[in-house]
Amino acid sequence: MTDPRYTPLAQSLPATVPFVGPETQERQRGAPFAARLGANESVFGPSPRAVEAMQRAAGDVWMYGDPESHDLRHALAVHHAVAPENIVVGEGIDGLLGYLVRLLVGSGDTVVTSDGAYPTFNYHVAGFGGILHTVPYRDDHEDPAALFAKAAEVNAKLVYLANPDNPMGSWHSGHDIVAAMDALPEGCLLVLDEAYVECAPEGTAAPVAADDPRLVRMRTFSKGYGMAGARVGYAIGAPDLILAFNKVRNHFGMNRVAQAGALAALKDQEWLALVQQRIIEARARINRTARENGLIPLPSASNFVTIDCGRDGAFAKAVLGSLVEQGVFVRMPFATPQNRCVRVSCGGEVEMAAFEAALPKALAKARAV
Amino acid sequence: MTDPRYTPLAQSLPATVPFVGPETQERQRGAPFAARLGANESVFGPSPRAVEAMQRAAGDVWMYGDPESHDLRHALAVHHAVAPENIVVGEGIDGLLGYLVRLLVGSGDTVVTSDGAYPTFNYHVAGFGGILHTVPYRDDHEDPAALFAKAAEVNAKLVYLANPDNPMGSWHSGHDIVAAMDALPEGCLLVLDEAYVECAPEGTAAPVAADDPRLVRMRTFSKGYGMAGARVGYAIGAPDLILAFNKVRNHFGMNRVAQAGALAALKDQEWLALVQQRIIEARARINRTARENGLIPLPSASNFVTIDCGRDGAFAKAVLGSLVEQGVFVRMPFATPQNRCVRVSCGGEVEMAAFEAALPKALAKARAV
Repeated sequence: MTDPRYTPLAQSLPATVPFVGPETQERQRGAPFAARLGANESVFGPSPRAVEAMQRAAGDVWMYGDPESHDLRHALAVHHAVAPENIVVGEGIDGLLGYLVRLLVGSGDTVVTSDGAYPTFNYHVAGFGGILHTVPYRDDHEDPAALFAKAAEVNAKLVYLANPDNPMGSWHSGHDIVAAMDALPEGCLLVLDEAYVECAPEGTAAPVAADDPRLVRMRTFSKGYGMAGARVGYAIGAPDLILAFNKVRNHFGMNRVAQAGALAALKDQEWLALVQQRIIEARARINRTARENGLIPLPSASNFVTIDCGRDGAFAKAVLGSLVEQGVFVRMPFATPQNRCVRVSCGGEVEMAAFEAALPKALAKARAV
Repeated sequence: MTDPRYTPLAQSLPATVPFVGPETQERQRGAPFAARLGANESVFGPSPRAVEAMQRAAGDVWMYGDPESHDLRHALAVHHAVAPENIVVGEGIDGLLGYLVRLLVGSGDTVVTSDGAYPTFNYHVAGFGGILHTVPYRDDHEDPAALFAKAAEVNAKLVYLANPDNPMGSWHSGHDIVAAMDALPEGCLLVLDEAYVECAPEGTAAPVAADDPRLVRMRTFSKGYGMAGARVGYAIGAPDLILAFNKVRNHFGMNRVAQAGALAALKDQEWLALVQQRIIEARARINRTARENGLIPLPSASNFVTIDCGRDGAFAKAVLGSLVEQGVFVRMPFATPQNRCVRVSCGGEVEMAAFEAALPKALAKARAV
């Protein structure tokens, strides 16, 4: 009996995971985390109306979800003042990025991103045989000009840019992004990941025509809307591109309860405003805690704050290790020199207090090494 | 400005959908269906404990689901008396079939299935550039010997077999499937879709060692467990194959609420037994209705009955058209000669009564053409 005959590409891939989940870490340490601040989830939770909608829809789960996500897609179109043909709903931005890469990237095709940007995007590019080129961050910001120049240089089919950025929390104005797009080479699609844009100041979202064929924007209910576990994302783009997702997507892949929840969440913009306020307060509190401990919090337009620990990656990793040991789940950037930082999601009173108690001990321990 | 540069494969694909959803049809007809009997969903619903578990978990939806689906996977391992390493949980069988095809099938690779079997599998094969070879049904049954002989003939990497079969409802004993596997060619993986096995008589599930590298079995919470809208499926196979899914799957793709619901559903085997009884009763009722109208119901081991309308595909299509017009959502097989049939899912009192009332009118109308 022989093993299955995997494709050469599949054989070449590692059985990797872009992120280790907090539950895995909890199982390893044999105890739950006291503060879950590592995955930029929204501790403030989803709209109570979204929760109610999901509870009501739970009994209907015997039915497949609408494969067109018609009601949600049409509500999103109204919300963004675009046509329903400009929107495709999918299983989170992660799922949509996978479909997008699959549509554009074959073996040897080139793609550009920033060194240290979203690992799951890189995972998809590798998974379809693409060649990833990177440019460094500039002053802890993604660098649109450098990204687009690199895209021209390597004839990239796709370039990835997150605004606001994860893991650094930095951002550009939407106008600056659009202005920089003048340098986007012909035939190169910009995927603009706006996962955190609901947490950002006015003017961060790119003010572009939805029909612009150079651009696809990714949005999600995972961050500001507090529904990471629901797996609802959407892409906004030109109708031809949006239609192309139908060639490869899992048409019946959407959870019916999540569809109902996302629709209710979208309609409760008051809740979103409340969460935005709490994010601002939590960022201020994380900033204060960092400064009180002699660290430098970086400006953030996201639901997290990235804190410069002031030394190298090994030091930040030691700080992170001790925080995790103390029950505070946080993560940190992967690439040098951003890996001098730890990244802390916004939390409520319990989480922020746990972080405040743990940080001085973590620093003392890391400094003692 | 130029359009995005799709891969040659993506350019060659139609923007298709394997199935039109009932909601789309409802929007087109401007009225909801009185009976939803077309997608083999379980009108009997999920376990009340699963609904409760989902309602409880709804408030936790701000957290991503566990990317390892640890608790569910371990409970499934106990349930099937296999190791957790034999199981991967995914976004329904549809999602898992996509990953499986991606792992094995590249441009020009050959795959075998039955003519008229599951369109979503065919969609995935086409989507990764595979060449699909088909064998006909034999007496409305899938024909393992012919499938495996064709696989040897065309050097297939993958062969698809559903047991029980959809859309015909026919089945083989698990022992017969295993015996037939002696003819499975070296290096050809059998994907055995057991989506409906919870609706089938004892002895239908294949009694094979989970570590057999020739086979991967697909299971789901969509049918017997009544959770189609939750999108929870799983594959049982050899550890190496199961591990390979980690190369390509959307690690954070599982809905957290659905994970909790599936775990509770699995633990409520009493509910499943109740549903199995109701399926048997509903099948008997559909059989009676078919016979009273001069039609021949085919034996079924599924949660639906496929009814031979006694003439050709055009006639069955006319019957189906009238049923749908009358508010009874049903579907029918695609391929000749199976398309002489319509396929009716098991329903409760309301749905069965609607079908009973609509069928005579549908037949009269179809016969009058």
